[in-house]
Amino acid sequence: MRPQDVIRRKREGDALSAEEIEFFVQGVTGGEFTDYQAAALLMAIYCRGMDEAEQRTLTGAMLRSGESLDFSDIPLPKADKHSTGGVGDKTSLVIAPLAASCGLAVPMISGRGLGHTGGTLDKLESIDGYRVKLTLAEFRRVLKLCGFAMMGQTAEIAPADRKLYALRDATATIETIPLIVASIMSKKLAAGLNALALDVKTGTGAFMREEARARELAYALVAIGNSYGVRTEALLTDMNQPLGRAVGHALEVHECIEILRGESHAGARPVLDLSVELTARMVALAGVEPTIEAARGRVGRALESGAALECFRRNVEAQGGDPRVCDDPARLLQTSTLRAVKVESSGAGGFITQVEAAEIGYAVSGIGGGRTRLEDEIDFQIGFVADVKHGDQIPARGALGTLYCRDDAQAATASARIRAAYTVGDEPPQGAPAKLIKEVITA
Amino acid sequence: MRPQDVIRRKREGDALSAEEIEFFVQGVTGGEFTDYQAAALLMAIYCRGMDEAEQRTLTGAMLRSGESLDFSDIPLPKADKHSTGGVGDKTSLVIAPLAASCGLAVPMISGRGLGHTGGTLDKLESIDGYRVKLTLAEFRRVLKLCGFAMMGQTAEIAPADRKLYALRDATATIETIPLIVASIMSKKLAAGLNALALDVKTGTGAFMREEARARELAYALVAIGNSYGVRTEALLTDMNQPLGRAVGHALEVHECIEILRGESHAGARPVLDLSVELTARMVALAGVEPTIEAARGRVGRALESGAALECFRRNVEAQGGDPRVCDDPARLLQTSTLRAVKVESSGAGGFITQVEAAEIGYAVSGIGGGRTRLEDEIDFQIGFVADVKHGDQIPARGALGTLYCRDDAQAATASARIRAAYTVGDEPPQGAPAKLIKEVITA
Repeated sequence: MRPQDVIRRKREGDALSAEEIEFFVQGVTGGEFTDYQAAALLMAIYCRGMDEAEQRTLTGAMLRSGESLDFSDIPLPKADKHSTGGVGDKTSLVIAPLAASCGLAVPMISGRGLGHTGGTLDKLESIDGYRVKLTLAEFRRVLKLCGFAMMGQTAEIAPADRKLYALRDATATIETIPLIVASIMSKKLAAGLNALALDVKTGTGAFMREEARARELAYALVAIGNSYGVRTEALLTDMNQPLGRAVGHALEVHECIEILRGESHAGARPVLDLSVELTARMVALAGVEPTIEAARGRVGRALESGAALECFRRNVEAQGGDPRVCDDPARLLQTSTLRAVKVESSGAGGFITQVEAAEIGYAVSGIGGGRTRLEDEIDFQIGFVADVKHGDQIPARGALGTLYCRDDAQAATASARIRAAYTVGDEPPQGAPAKLIKEVITA
Repeated sequence: MRPQDVIRRKREGDALSAEEIEFFVQGVTGGEFTDYQAAALLMAIYCRGMDEAEQRTLTGAMLRSGESLDFSDIPLPKADKHSTGGVGDKTSLVIAPLAASCGLAVPMISGRGLGHTGGTLDKLESIDGYRVKLTLAEFRRVLKLCGFAMMGQTAEIAPADRKLYALRDATATIETIPLIVASIMSKKLAAGLNALALDVKTGTGAFMREEARARELAYALVAIGNSYGVRTEALLTDMNQPLGRAVGHALEVHECIEILRGESHAGARPVLDLSVELTARMVALAGVEPTIEAARGRVGRALESGAALECFRRNVEAQGGDPRVCDDPARLLQTSTLRAVKVESSGAGGFITQVEAAEIGYAVSGIGGGRTRLEDEIDFQIGFVADVKHGDQIPARGALGTLYCRDDAQAATASARIRAAYTVGDEPPQGAPAKLIKEVITA
């Protein structure tokens, strides 16, 4: 078998055999497939697609390119959630302790942020001392101790995915369902899960703006997860504005701790609602409760009792962070060294009819509050707290929110970009308000 | 501009701008486009295509990646022919001296053989002493002296094409019209031609088996040539059996010299007819004769008078070869050291209903009479001389032709493959015999 023969078959739209897909994935790490041959095959897959059997084989081959984690010594169901990413999407920080306090073990292998989205690992690092670079032994110890642990992908897990993701990023072959599915699911399968809840986002701040494409991705992910014995469901959720109020690292952790403390702002309600529903899906899928209704009840009690907050506190301590942020989340925000700038709407006032959520993410990361390139350092304090949501009425020069930054130049650049992200119209938006959870996709 | 942005646009099926195409071609030689980014873009072009304006820009950018040759000091019209390649396709060896003897200057930059097809340069090297590695100064001197000169592509001509062709070969992106057009035409435009006749082959021995695709390629080539001021026509020709009788290096040169001497076998008639027609097209396009009829007359006279043979002789001498092959072409064939093996048809006799021409080419190259890999050495003496053509009636175990090889193992391997390439049926083939020249495509 030669790489060009495999490329030729996919180029012609044929389904690849299991042998061909294995040859590709082994060749990418082993060297039989050069980078340029892999890039050509990735583009052929982008253009011609892959059927469900090919996606399943590709996922399995990428999983087997590395090691799987074995948590069978922990006598709890293992569950996780994964989000396709959005602006202000911080639910992992609520879900992990909430699920753990409901009797699940949550070995959460998270990512870094890039472009308009932030990463869970980066957000956690805004807690003084918090360490996400754990050895596998440390990860296991924290997981046993707290019920959840947070770390990044290691070199041992799905190395073919690391290699292919870098190639995809450089060759404009990220945004295609078969490759997204294999990348996400190969890593999730390596964690030996019993249950997985997926948050597939669609809208102006999502990677898949189009709802139909996001739905297609959700169905594909659910099919592959269940075919590998992981009980998997997906929520198709609205990402046409930042989720909650906060965009930025310390600000987002602050918002999450307020939620865990039961004292969050009304504007953070979507973060709470989505976190509860995703956690309840995990609890029900893992069999801890027999129905989704019972699972919602258990999750609500874990939150109200403060059990989830205590679980989070134990994790922060176990991973080296300052647990005092759990009692006083304002410790996260170094307000004395920051400029807080009110961002005003342009024009004569009216109704928020459209929010370009990705632009808000780019505005924050563009002034150091995120990464525009992989090697960028992040200023955890920089961010934006939104005061308005889609459909809200505002006066002329009404406040859109508050920008936290360091200097006038940052203030000017980011304010203008955020202002432009909000469209203010004379009439309220047409139709019913968008539902946060648009659809539940089950096996 | 970033490579991935250009790739993304083509991936979505957009037409690339002139700036984007220039950035790609310059980036491929300059390093701004990595090999894997170039490979991804090549596959996106394969899958999404390029319109005529993009093809024209790509051709021009590849031309400008290197140097052009300037033969303006030669006071003759410059003309060339190019074939897309086939089995036993040896017309260059007849056309170059024939066109030169009609008053054209023919600066022919030819290629090497690979797979089922042979290359003009390799064939010429079967003449004892013949040198195809000329300096540009030598090439110019031979061209002035003989009216034609033969050499390979230099590092200075269209270097982007050299780089891209190697990538295309490794990534299964050869067979797509925009890239074929740019590759062929960038090199032909570099030779500063006034006229160009193209031989676009279709059938079992051609790179484009499908007639519709070959026709599409012919139209694209003719459009680009004329748009750059080179008067260009294409013949769409049949390649459903070897052209003429001989397949193999020395054997093909032998067949051509017999044609130039006016003493060729009846089975070589298609080589003669196609060579005359392609040369007449060059003569008419270059304006040496006002009509194609007058051009055919001039070409016929140049052949009958022996002027073309004398022109060939001068070239062989000028490029270091032994000119005695022009008087005694049998000198080319070292018959005493070879085995001549009769290849018989299988089955009960009947009519030749199908010839897998490419298989005959692979049979010869597979035993050393061609290249299966770029680095292979060629045994110039090895080859096959066909006794039968499509539609011929043959008895049981009738002779298909003679295989020239070195040993029993070669004889067994190649005979079996050649035998299998011929289908013998009970009935004559349906319909009218295929015409050698199917269509003339003009601007």
